[in-house]
Amino acid sequence: MAKDKKVEQITDMEVDFAQWYTDICRKAELVEYASVKGFTILRPYGYAIWENMQRIMDAAFKKTGHQNVAMPVLIPESLLKKEGELVNGFAPECAWVTQGGSEQLEERLAFRPTSETMFCDHWSRVLHSYRELPMLYNQWCSVIRWEKTTRPFLRSREFWWQEGHTIHETAEEAMAETEQQLNCYADFYEKVLAIPVVKGRKTEKEKFAGAEATYTVECMMKDHKALQGATSHYFGDKFSRAYGVTFTGRDNRLQYPFQTSWGSTTRMIGAVIMAHGDNNGLVLPPPIAPIQVIILPVAQHKPGVLEAAAALKDRLAAAGLRVQVDDSENSMGWKCAQYEMKGVPLRVEIGPRDIEAGQCVLVRRSDGEKTVVSLGALEEAAKAQLALVQQGLYEKAKRNLEEHCWPAWSVEEAKRLQEEKGGFIKTMWCGDVACEQKMKEEAGMSSRCLPFAQEKLSDVCACCGRPADKMLFWGVAY
Amino acid sequence: MAKDKKVEQITDMEVDFAQWYTDICRKAELVEYASVKGFTILRPYGYAIWENMQRIMDAAFKKTGHQNVAMPVLIPESLLKKEGELVNGFAPECAWVTQGGSEQLEERLAFRPTSETMFCDHWSRVLHSYRELPMLYNQWCSVIRWEKTTRPFLRSREFWWQEGHTIHETAEEAMAETEQQLNCYADFYEKVLAIPVVKGRKTEKEKFAGAEATYTVECMMKDHKALQGATSHYFGDKFSRAYGVTFTGRDNRLQYPFQTSWGSTTRMIGAVIMAHGDNNGLVLPPPIAPIQVIILPVAQHKPGVLEAAAALKDRLAAAGLRVQVDDSENSMGWKCAQYEMKGVPLRVEIGPRDIEAGQCVLVRRSDGEKTVVSLGALEEAAKAQLALVQQGLYEKAKRNLEEHCWPAWSVEEAKRLQEEKGGFIKTMWCGDVACEQKMKEEAGMSSRCLPFAQEKLSDVCACCGRPADKMLFWGVAY
Repeated sequence: MAKDKKVEQITDMEVDFAQWYTDICRKAELVEYASVKGFTILRPYGYAIWENMQRIMDAAFKKTGHQNVAMPVLIPESLLKKEGELVNGFAPECAWVTQGGSEQLEERLAFRPTSETMFCDHWSRVLHSYRELPMLYNQWCSVIRWEKTTRPFLRSREFWWQEGHTIHETAEEAMAETEQQLNCYADFYEKVLAIPVVKGRKTEKEKFAGAEATYTVECMMKDHKALQGATSHYFGDKFSRAYGVTFTGRDNRLQYPFQTSWGSTTRMIGAVIMAHGDNNGLVLPPPIAPIQVIILPVAQHKPGVLEAAAALKDRLAAAGLRVQVDDSENSMGWKCAQYEMKGVPLRVEIGPRDIEAGQCVLVRRSDGEKTVVSLGALEEAAKAQLALVQQGLYEKAKRNLEEHCWPAWSVEEAKRLQEEKGGFIKTMWCGDVACEQKMKEEAGMSSRCLPFAQEKLSDVCACCGRPADKMLFWGVAY
Repeated sequence: MAKDKKVEQITDMEVDFAQWYTDICRKAELVEYASVKGFTILRPYGYAIWENMQRIMDAAFKKTGHQNVAMPVLIPESLLKKEGELVNGFAPECAWVTQGGSEQLEERLAFRPTSETMFCDHWSRVLHSYRELPMLYNQWCSVIRWEKTTRPFLRSREFWWQEGHTIHETAEEAMAETEQQLNCYADFYEKVLAIPVVKGRKTEKEKFAGAEATYTVECMMKDHKALQGATSHYFGDKFSRAYGVTFTGRDNRLQYPFQTSWGSTTRMIGAVIMAHGDNNGLVLPPPIAPIQVIILPVAQHKPGVLEAAAALKDRLAAAGLRVQVDDSENSMGWKCAQYEMKGVPLRVEIGPRDIEAGQCVLVRRSDGEKTVVSLGALEEAAKAQLALVQQGLYEKAKRNLEEHCWPAWSVEEAKRLQEEKGGFIKTMWCGDVACEQKMKEEAGMSSRCLPFAQEKLSDVCACCGRPADKMLFWGVAY
């Protein structure tokens, strides 16, 4: 046994959730700080999770006709400025390139904070006819937003994401695209990440700079704080007009196309940590786990054990699972703790007595449940257990969400509920941004969304008492 | 028939090779210029080729144990400066971020021109023991080098690439990695891109800034100019020492690991264009073609034709091929020209008479060869034709290379051969950089590599007449 390996402890999530989160990011080797302030490194294990997310989302995007492209990373300031709201929203957070080689640039260039401007500029040169519409583009890249305070995955100066950008012949088609992509994100969260979401529309105050409407999927973390999961925006023809994107329509007249954009980021890894993790570390939903099954040989020096473990590995790999054997010299205790920390969904234990009995033991990471299965039925059993892990994670997260949604009829009540119970507070709202300001100042909550599933709690705004016909979700957000 | 669609003409490659190249880049819709000088946009068709290249290379890297990571894109100037040769090589070409949000940065940050410095900085913090070695990392990203003159794919201020970075316990292991990755590139060029390469070592003058040794795969284009395909570098422990990367060795003493890096870029798309393209446009090797088979229905308004075309598509897709049907209203002539321009390797034509005869026609893009095949044998026949396309492209490119390698025994002769015949000129070389300068000034050629397959042409240097035991390849390079 190697004596230098000890099980690393992480902070108890009940004691200090923020420190627990940071501990997992580091000890599960997902991420490391870089020497540039506010920047992070995605380490192999963290990046492998991102690759799985990318592969699944990319296939979904392509299935609905989207194509990937690569746009330049630097945007001239004058180009960024053509649409006023966008530049007002993003310019304060841009990193600016002012020197290229030995020359001082005549115009400074922004490292892309988002690429609507570049896509519009491109379309203004390549789009001619309605026959070329829709153009359904997506780009996987990193962006920079010069945030003041940062946290791994949740808020960092550089982050990795996909940004979809599309243009359409009609407003209806663009709106349908906006909705389709919001649903695509909702499906990804619920079916792949096992995280239930609240779908809805952002208020004017919280919408994307320059958008006509922003739709969002909002999730709840284990500490009952809210996390904006992904957003889908409808722009109308505002950017088309600002950037001179036109096409010859069916009526032979020049028209402006209608536009959408939609994005999701590496913050989804943060969502997974905080939606499913526990005091033993990360808990990964099987579809995104770099290792879905870890096989630990028991008493591995006894004859036949390593061979049996290797045979199980080959069978599970042939069945399409991502599987590894750990036959290192580390202790069984260390190995169990290590793969729990890394959130591997299923552990298979096999030792001399199991071999004799023609069986092995499957242990679920999500709830510690052990199942003894006959070796002959391994593939089927492993897949069934992984499905149970996925289902269990989703149901637990769903309960967490449902049990932390509280109606309130006044700002004081909303504040008390947030402090005492936490979660989403739902109230009627008149539509006035002043009421959002008030809720922020007095109860520390921002509006999360106007959920599609509206309820009528009363006739008046919880903040000002004026007539109100909209129900709004509030929360303390990451 | 849509009257607004006409077949676009491109410049004859014999008349103006450079314009022919640019025409293909634009008319095959691979790339478009951006509004930022020297930057390009990878359009859907160009990016799809890059995605195919990425998928195949990434699988090869992972098969040999490499893991992907993401490093920050911005590098503090002080960090970049820790290794003198590297910074001297790259600083003159860096784009510098000097403002973040509203703040003027105390230290300017370089947009990564290459990431050795970031990897070393990371390793200096996470590496502890020989047990953690080797660390075999790779990153897919874009880099910026502030070039003065640019050409799509071949030289642009931003380009997309993979950069592998590894550290090892011993010099031997690092050297083996350097060679393995060079061979990986050579295999990719020869087996996937159907482009034969000359493998060899770069001279001191031409090696990567900061490397102990640089290895290269050199290819020849149809105009007989040379193109550096990809490079693999051995660093010894030079960067480890400069960046304080250490580990506790088997002897319990602190040691410096040995390092490699290796990279390949979107310039590979440029290589494919110039190695295989012709006056009808792009010619793509099947493994990287976004569309491998295009099905064109003949007399598509006749009953049963579109149904038959769709059925062929389903069968070829089920057989694992990337296949599309073009049932648009455009003329057959336009369609043929369009898919030739886009380099689709195989065209399938099916019309009423074919259906009646139970057959269809396969046409190879690479040489125009037509084959009539029985519908029952379609999958097998299509795969066989694609294999013939791949083989034919490789053989043709191989002949082009072999028939344009000329031995020379003096600078004058080398110059004359280059001017009259073009290609690689091989001479004996004494090892003095002054002789490389002379060849550059007098014959306009740079040294390409010291090929692994050495020949003894004489005992003396072709440039200075002093004793020489190395044979060097020279060429006019992209």
